[in-house]
Amino acid sequence: MSGKESDAMMELGTLHRERLEYLPRMPPLLRGAFNIRKGDITSAQHDAQEIRKVFPKLFGQPSIHIVQNRGDPVTVGEELKVGVVFAGGPAPGGHNVVCGLFDHLKERNVDSKVFGFLNGTSGLMSGTYIELFESSLARFRNQGGFHMLGSDRTKLETEADFERARKVAKELDLDGLVFIGGFDTNTNAMYAAENFKMHDVKTNVVSVPSTIDGDLRNQQLQTSIGFDTVTKVYAELIANLGYDAYSAKKSYHFCRLMGRHASHVALEVALQTRPNMCLLGEEVRRRRLTLAEITSEIADLICERAAVDKNYGVLVVPEGLIEFIPDVNDLLKELNELLAKGHNDRSTIVPELSESARATFSSLPNSIGTQLLFERDPHGNVQLSRIEVERLLIETVKKELGERKARGVYKGSFSAIPHYFGYEGRCALPTNFDCNYGYALGHTAGALLESSNSGYAVSVSDLTSAPEKWECGGYPLTMMMSIERRKGASGAVVNRSLVNLDGIAFKVFKEQRKNWRLTEDYRTSGPIQHFEQM
Amino acid sequence: MSGKESDAMMELGTLHRERLEYLPRMPPLLRGAFNIRKGDITSAQHDAQEIRKVFPKLFGQPSIHIVQNRGDPVTVGEELKVGVVFAGGPAPGGHNVVCGLFDHLKERNVDSKVFGFLNGTSGLMSGTYIELFESSLARFRNQGGFHMLGSDRTKLETEADFERARKVAKELDLDGLVFIGGFDTNTNAMYAAENFKMHDVKTNVVSVPSTIDGDLRNQQLQTSIGFDTVTKVYAELIANLGYDAYSAKKSYHFCRLMGRHASHVALEVALQTRPNMCLLGEEVRRRRLTLAEITSEIADLICERAAVDKNYGVLVVPEGLIEFIPDVNDLLKELNELLAKGHNDRSTIVPELSESARATFSSLPNSIGTQLLFERDPHGNVQLSRIEVERLLIETVKKELGERKARGVYKGSFSAIPHYFGYEGRCALPTNFDCNYGYALGHTAGALLESSNSGYAVSVSDLTSAPEKWECGGYPLTMMMSIERRKGASGAVVNRSLVNLDGIAFKVFKEQRKNWRLTEDYRTSGPIQHFEQM
Repeated sequence: MSGKESDAMMELGTLHRERLEYLPRMPPLLRGAFNIRKGDITSAQHDAQEIRKVFPKLFGQPSIHIVQNRGDPVTVGEELKVGVVFAGGPAPGGHNVVCGLFDHLKERNVDSKVFGFLNGTSGLMSGTYIELFESSLARFRNQGGFHMLGSDRTKLETEADFERARKVAKELDLDGLVFIGGFDTNTNAMYAAENFKMHDVKTNVVSVPSTIDGDLRNQQLQTSIGFDTVTKVYAELIANLGYDAYSAKKSYHFCRLMGRHASHVALEVALQTRPNMCLLGEEVRRRRLTLAEITSEIADLICERAAVDKNYGVLVVPEGLIEFIPDVNDLLKELNELLAKGHNDRSTIVPELSESARATFSSLPNSIGTQLLFERDPHGNVQLSRIEVERLLIETVKKELGERKARGVYKGSFSAIPHYFGYEGRCALPTNFDCNYGYALGHTAGALLESSNSGYAVSVSDLTSAPEKWECGGYPLTMMMSIERRKGASGAVVNRSLVNLDGIAFKVFKEQRKNWRLTEDYRTSGPIQHFEQM
Repeated sequence: MSGKESDAMMELGTLHRERLEYLPRMPPLLRGAFNIRKGDITSAQHDAQEIRKVFPKLFGQPSIHIVQNRGDPVTVGEELKVGVVFAGGPAPGGHNVVCGLFDHLKERNVDSKVFGFLNGTSGLMSGTYIELFESSLARFRNQGGFHMLGSDRTKLETEADFERARKVAKELDLDGLVFIGGFDTNTNAMYAAENFKMHDVKTNVVSVPSTIDGDLRNQQLQTSIGFDTVTKVYAELIANLGYDAYSAKKSYHFCRLMGRHASHVALEVALQTRPNMCLLGEEVRRRRLTLAEITSEIADLICERAAVDKNYGVLVVPEGLIEFIPDVNDLLKELNELLAKGHNDRSTIVPELSESARATFSSLPNSIGTQLLFERDPHGNVQLSRIEVERLLIETVKKELGERKARGVYKGSFSAIPHYFGYEGRCALPTNFDCNYGYALGHTAGALLESSNSGYAVSVSDLTSAPEKWECGGYPLTMMMSIERRKGASGAVVNRSLVNLDGIAFKVFKEQRKNWRLTEDYRTSGPIQHFEQM
């Protein structure tokens, strides 16, 4: 290390420096000479016929398992050129995927090259990249964020997009390309793999499951990188808020957690912290609760607590809750249609709504109604993501409690503080688990590319065992896809996993949550202790 | 421990359990036979004559220093009865003050008793308390929050309030009373000490500096408990947001930090994390910046960054910023006067404003103006604390950038996400420093009461040395007070300490901040590692 580099390192926080020295644990076979065992040919759980049509070249490939080679010595691998792209929101562990990939390829053949595309898929399309060296990775080992390369949400969509990507892949003579991201990214990786194959581009494409939302899990993928870290970061904060409510005894903390399409984060954090109430989108949908019913259930909790002189507590909701509420969803559909027809004034829109949608609309606080009508996304749709569900619920609950007070059935005082935890977790220092898991995924991605596989999600499983025993390999992305129909068009997409209301996590939650309503049995795990846990 | 208690302990998070076993470090002399050395008689820095009139019995007492007794063996102390009260917002380390006090008194005389008043000063007035035993403390050692007893913001104000407190003190036969809190609490403690002395109540009163805002520091008190912990908690989150901005490259994070009356938290967190910009109320006031000028300075930063293709970053502001802006402050004064005169309608209020106040009012985003007019505190005043300064600035900056774009001098894209960090830090697991400091303060409080001192702030100093070398004692609260005049009335209050714009911390900040504007040199210390640092 030069004097200047060493000064730069000293500028880093102590823990940052210490974590750079952490050696991720992983199955030792990834470092030795291993064999590739192919499983049976595969299909898709749903829509297999249609998915095969979308991916005629790559549909139905076998699963791939990396297994011990008990005879041969360590082999020297081929000289490979591999590109890597971060896509979508950052997730702790992402940097270790790149480090694992780099180390794998360089250990096999020191002349192999790794290129990092800058700022996501747009960097792939424009051919904006850097070649990675040990010095490029030095500050990023075991660190959070995606900022070594940057990320974006650009997708390869049009044939022109794919053509640009092919051109870059050919110019760089890429043997492989690794996408790190969530569904959209994994879906995109499959399209890229097929498209490259179709055009006889040699670049094999694999994808690594990375999303803090935890909704990229299925029979093939146990979890995504980042989920372990962020739920622990949020759990520390939520538990602190529980103790704050219990100390000051005058406020409810309404906490929104990330998770637009599924409530895994909220469920996991609730299990870790025991808030007085936690709503899950999936349950709201199954029970077909209206916004008024949800409001009423929260007000019931607050009345019960007020009856025992507790005008404080902590509630957790997933940010995507609104989209799971059937009546609000129906309203949104009608609004979007009216907006598409050119309506843009409250006075002309409201009378056009169906009776039930109008009732829902008028139950919304004024400010939220205005937001729904006037803040649109670039496609002209209502910007649901702008609605802060914790603030919406504070308003509707306040109104409901006011009415109950007028009827004499509620005598407490209600004060509520909104919170949103999301962005501050996405780039947190990864737990040892996410460091190990990301690193093993990176190595495995390298192994899959070495053996010329394309259209695979990289898989590391048996994750509750010690990292040395993890199973590594890959599953065809087509196994995890189904056909999504929207806006007239249809396409194959990687499935999102919702909270399984028949699963064990929800069952435990359902059994325990009644005990949390009236108590202050908040549980803290404190901040992540990086050198202690797995 | 009974089986049931042991089960309850197993239910706790691992780190929670581990921290229960942590043995705080402190000066060993607090455990042995020590002498009390009295310093010279004291005065007050300001308004000494008037303060003497307010506290005729206790003004001018000497400082007290606990010093090694090199001859005598450990003495057995008197049997004492001592009450303890949490008042104001929770601060990490508060539980250890109670534990230190309890341990000190019990080590000196096993028959001494400690009573914890419930839910703050209102528990003192109503005589609502629990006697504390080792079993009461067992779950709270080295833990965050004030929930062992609860807290509130009630003050002893009227003679009737003091009478109730005296009655409770006499009924419990209290030798001593310890208040744990910020200025208001320390001020209140001084009034209680004088009042008790005046009425020949034997209860001596001392106070322990506890506020996360860090504004209870002066020549006698080096810092308050909690500040060390919360700034580290917030710094972790702010650094994560820096990396998030740098990873996704599309948003500014506007972060509000606690600190209504002073900007110590924002300054400390900025020094730890290096955001692209951090505003400090004290500097805004000294420079007499208007809201428009602040907006313009933020917009300048955003334009400079946009010019090098960086449409992202992180900004930090203290929650009390608005109160430091002279023109907004003038507006608020006028609004409060008009509201007091019974005006309650925008159409009648606005024309009554002075020209400059009207200009300021019309520069505010609509929603903020409405908030100012319609949300009042119980005294009818504008509720400044409801204004979310990070959202206000996002609105004013957005407008300013829109105008610059129209003039062709700004070509970037502006997207901003508001954050507020406060409540989630107040009950965080205390750092070793706050554990040690709180525990030493508790012991010292016991020592001051043993030697029959009243009207003192408990002091532990030389805090940059190892805890074994800390100096312990007490300073008369009257030393730290001045006369505050408001609403026609005047009273003695403990002084608030603002950020010293001629001090070293600000100087370092001022030198370094220019380097932070265009870079992404965010620094993370990660989450607090509890068994590593002091």
